[in-house]
Amino acid sequence: MATQPLVDPELLAAKKSWKEYFAAKLGFRNHWYVACFSREIAEGEVLARKIMGEGILLRRINGKVHAIRDRCIHRGVKLSDKVECHNAETITCWYHGFTFRWEDGLVTAIVGAPESSAVGTKRIKTYPVEEAKGLVFVFVGDADFAAPPLRHECPPSFLDDAVVVEGDCRVVKSNWRLGPEGGIDEIHRYLHREAPLLLNTKSSLPLGHKAVRGQFEMVEDEDGPKGLIDHFKAEKMYFDAQLDEKTVVRGVNFGAEGRRAVYASVWLPACLKVEGFPGPGLTLFEWYVPIDETSHRCFMTIGSACATDEEADLFRQAYKARWKPLAVDGFLQQDIMARESAQGFYGNDRAWLEECLVEDDFMLIEWRKLRARHCHGIQTLDHLL
Amino acid sequence: MATQPLVDPELLAAKKSWKEYFAAKLGFRNHWYVACFSREIAEGEVLARKIMGEGILLRRINGKVHAIRDRCIHRGVKLSDKVECHNAETITCWYHGFTFRWEDGLVTAIVGAPESSAVGTKRIKTYPVEEAKGLVFVFVGDADFAAPPLRHECPPSFLDDAVVVEGDCRVVKSNWRLGPEGGIDEIHRYLHREAPLLLNTKSSLPLGHKAVRGQFEMVEDEDGPKGLIDHFKAEKMYFDAQLDEKTVVRGVNFGAEGRRAVYASVWLPACLKVEGFPGPGLTLFEWYVPIDETSHRCFMTIGSACATDEEADLFRQAYKARWKPLAVDGFLQQDIMARESAQGFYGNDRAWLEECLVEDDFMLIEWRKLRARHCHGIQTLDHLL
Amino acid sequence: MATQPLVDPELLAAKKSWKEYFAAKLGFRNHWYVACFSREIAEGEVLARKIMGEGILLRRINGKVHAIRDRCIHRGVKLSDKVECHNAETITCWYHGFTFRWEDGLVTAIVGAPESSAVGTKRIKTYPVEEAKGLVFVFVGDADFAAPPLRHECPPSFLDDAVVVEGDCRVVKSNWRLGPEGGIDEIHRYLHREAPLLLNTKSSLPLGHKAVRGQFEMVEDEDGPKGLIDHFKAEKMYFDAQLDEKTVVRGVNFGAEGRRAVYASVWLPACLKVEGFPGPGLTLFEWYVPIDETSHRCFMTIGSACATDEEADLFRQAYKARWKPLAVDGFLQQDIMARESAQGFYGNDRAWLEECLVEDDFMLIEWRKLRARHCHGIQTLDHLL
Repeated sequence: MATQPLVDPELLAAKKSWKEYFAAKLGFRNHWYVACFSREIAEGEVLARKIMGEGILLRRINGKVHAIRDRCIHRGVKLSDKVECHNAETITCWYHGFTFRWEDGLVTAIVGAPESSAVGTKRIKTYPVEEAKGLVFVFVGDADFAAPPLRHECPPSFLDDAVVVEGDCRVVKSNWRLGPEGGIDEIHRYLHREAPLLLNTKSSLPLGHKAVRGQFEMVEDEDGPKGLIDHFKAEKMYFDAQLDEKTVVRGVNFGAEGRRAVYASVWLPACLKVEGFPGPGLTLFEWYVPIDETSHRCFMTIGSACATDEEADLFRQAYKARWKPLAVDGFLQQDIMARESAQGFYGNDRAWLEECLVEDDFMLIEWRKLRARHCHGIQTLDHLL
Repeated sequence: MATQPLVDPELLAAKKSWKEYFAAKLGFRNHWYVACFSREIAEGEVLARKIMGEGILLRRINGKVHAIRDRCIHRGVKLSDKVECHNAETITCWYHGFTFRWEDGLVTAIVGAPESSAVGTKRIKTYPVEEAKGLVFVFVGDADFAAPPLRHECPPSFLDDAVVVEGDCRVVKSNWRLGPEGGIDEIHRYLHREAPLLLNTKSSLPLGHKAVRGQFEMVEDEDGPKGLIDHFKAEKMYFDAQLDEKTVVRGVNFGAEGRRAVYASVWLPACLKVEGFPGPGLTLFEWYVPIDETSHRCFMTIGSACATDEEADLFRQAYKARWKPLAVDGFLQQDIMARESAQGFYGNDRAWLEECLVEDDFMLIEWRKLRARHCHGIQTLDHLL
Repeated sequence: MATQPLVDPELLAAKKSWKEYFAAKLGFRNHWYVACFSREIAEGEVLARKIMGEGILLRRINGKVHAIRDRCIHRGVKLSDKVECHNAETITCWYHGFTFRWEDGLVTAIVGAPESSAVGTKRIKTYPVEEAKGLVFVFVGDADFAAPPLRHECPPSFLDDAVVVEGDCRVVKSNWRLGPEGGIDEIHRYLHREAPLLLNTKSSLPLGHKAVRGQFEMVEDEDGPKGLIDHFKAEKMYFDAQLDEKTVVRGVNFGAEGRRAVYASVWLPACLKVEGFPGPGLTLFEWYVPIDETSHRCFMTIGSACATDEEADLFRQAYKARWKPLAVDGFLQQDIMARESAQGFYGNDRAWLEECLVEDDFMLIEWRKLRARHCHGIQTLDHLL
């Protein structure tokens, strides 16, 4: 019994080199996704999240976070509609008392039918969980697919010992694919030309450029993260755009000292890394996690290599006082607005055939191809049952 | 010109023994359904209701309630958008003045086109109406299907002379099928373990049991109501559920005197009867009436056999002061919450193939089979035009 | 790659003589449609509108209104989400800086990619615009379809030099087709029997009539407007409708002096003209412009032939003080209520086969046939990409 595919196969056929990416409207399976910040789930607490349409329930037990499907196997109600944990190890469905062990999902008891053969035999789906740098990662995948090490699915340097990470999360009303595409987009600086962050950091912002084609690097080592690095190299840079004899749109120009190198790359499953942003010595890691077809969670995190605890404290203070208001709530919010607006177009599957990309958008296409090439499974409506 | 079926035929094929039930997402045709309480429609008043997607308009004339389709035959507007009854016998459509006789639906006049051949020949659909025990029943069916006596579609004892009925109604955001299924569910007592009604009535509530399979009775006499009686017989009863060495979930236990026999049964078209609930000598009759695919009206009524008017008055006072707050707004509201939560699962037709029932759920399946066996017609989108 | 048609072809096949009309749920292409009042768009201002599902952006430059598609050709965002016009001649997309010339849609610059080959070659869709009598008309059609003169698509007399036009606009929650159908409807006077306008203008309102069939005129000259004129001629008129021996519904009767001739006609693409309404010497022109499948803009305009500026001033004062409150916000609002109610029926495509028209509705059918006969293109979902 086949379900209706999420994207019309006739449309998919038109995009051979990134067909799987086109099809993965709900996301790719068999990857580690950020579920929440560690700080959001204290000992004993339960938190419900939706990733690629799947309801997932998290609980921290003796420091370790466990994850199970947020839907009773019996009559399908959400366990999170009324959380009942009678002891540390289990959760009991509020309806008939099906009791599941967080660790392995086993039905350890059914209050209403204690002698049922389901006790000790049936299971609810569990998900592998890892925690790193203040983020909780959940592996959303198939039972027969071994989760790779988390380091294979984090951008290089993110897991480095010295790196301290701070960040915040927003729910964005656009498909998840518009996240990395907006990050790797070389020519959208115009959007940011009035961001106060630029003045605050005295960073110059050229508005346009002529790119050297082919200045990118595919990273596809078997034993490591996979991604696409933009070795940005412009033949020319423009700070001003002349629209007619009298009209000039001006970028932000602090002269030579304002020109800061900013290197962007995107990594599987869907993380943007920008070195040198939002300020010197800092790195943006932005994670895009599909909620459903039309929304995603965006975890905007900033990493700083800190040699001492004092340095780490100073970074944390700077995050709150400077980077959160100016980068997360300012600059990056402009990108979120753009994604939500583009959703009005790309929300229609046909739009992917109608978009009118320009030469400097070649990175977009490389990313789509890379992402399609490393497909381990496409989330479908069947997976939601 | 076939319309899209409400449930995919491929899915239906997987459930042979209750296929019709699976298909009857919008309800079964050719049955008596509760439209409202008698008290809701005073002499001369007009009331609009939707049953199985059909808009129905009711009016009480000289004591008797009449029902017609709430849609003008001419240009399809709802008569209830602006009710205009110029005399006792008719209703006039506010748009072109089509005037329909409540009794037989005949077009007796068209104000805008008085000489049209439609006058005296065309009709609006009418519905048989019966009133009993303070409820107004409407027969929603085909023109060529003779309505059976109302007593065939009320649970036994409901129509008994001595029985006085009180009750209230709620709109529930779930498919109607989750109503009787939740009522006949033997193992969901856990849901109710903290209901104040139990303490108020000093009723014990075992949490679990091991059922004796086959302790049910099918009632399918041609000349009477059809239903399924749960002759509840447990091999064992459990008041406590041991979750681990230290953790016990406790039921409500007032000892031997708190153990009250409570007998449940379900009846066509969709009524639950629980004898001994919410208190000794009382009987719950709960009617589930489809509004559309995702909602139903739940008429929660309690019957009490009263020998005298004084007894009847006392029962009515007890209903207001005790049974309404504790049973209708308390205990039964917990079931409503469960139905609305289960709708998140069963709202997807595929869920009916994915549910994971246990041994003690056999009553559910018997009910589905009984209901499917006595199918006189399935409501489809075609019936809504 | 065919998209799903808006109306099921099997249904369309049942209505051969007005099949195109049935199919044109989103409207007919290649026509002049009213976008807004001239007063809504001052010099330099930008206004966004949706016509037949297409987002259209308007701007007045040196007095002349220009129109382009409200969607960037590059990544599909709406230009109107953040309007940026750096000079008089162009609009710049807020995202990547694609800059389009209002006059011809040409990409004159791309701020983010100034050397792209798209500059000076690619275009955004533009729409012909005409302004007349205080209304802004936009031609929504195909690139290879030459826009006819505006006078071919305005009812006769509307463009006459002496005619002064005043009016207002409402968004109506019904399909656009219910607009002209409600206007040409001969037998709906009952709806208006209590409109205060009738008393204010001492106009009689018969409730019903027996029409002389065939009293209409098709106007289909190649070099002029196409329409259907109702040369209303009743064999009999009724001021009172007798519902039973005692019950009479009365029309408004000011005797002979209250009987005013009111002539209705409908014109392509979708405009109602009523001479003698709302008062002697006045003419109603009501324009129905599809927004999407379930809503339209209704421009209710009243024309008055004025010989002098003083006469024009008096008419404008009368519009504000008398015709706007009594005709636009009163009488015509009753028709809007009827259209919105009928949408509950006609919103289902099958309803068009189920409606039960009467003899006096023959004008409706003639209009549908006329409209179908002059079909230059049906708006589909494909046109929205």
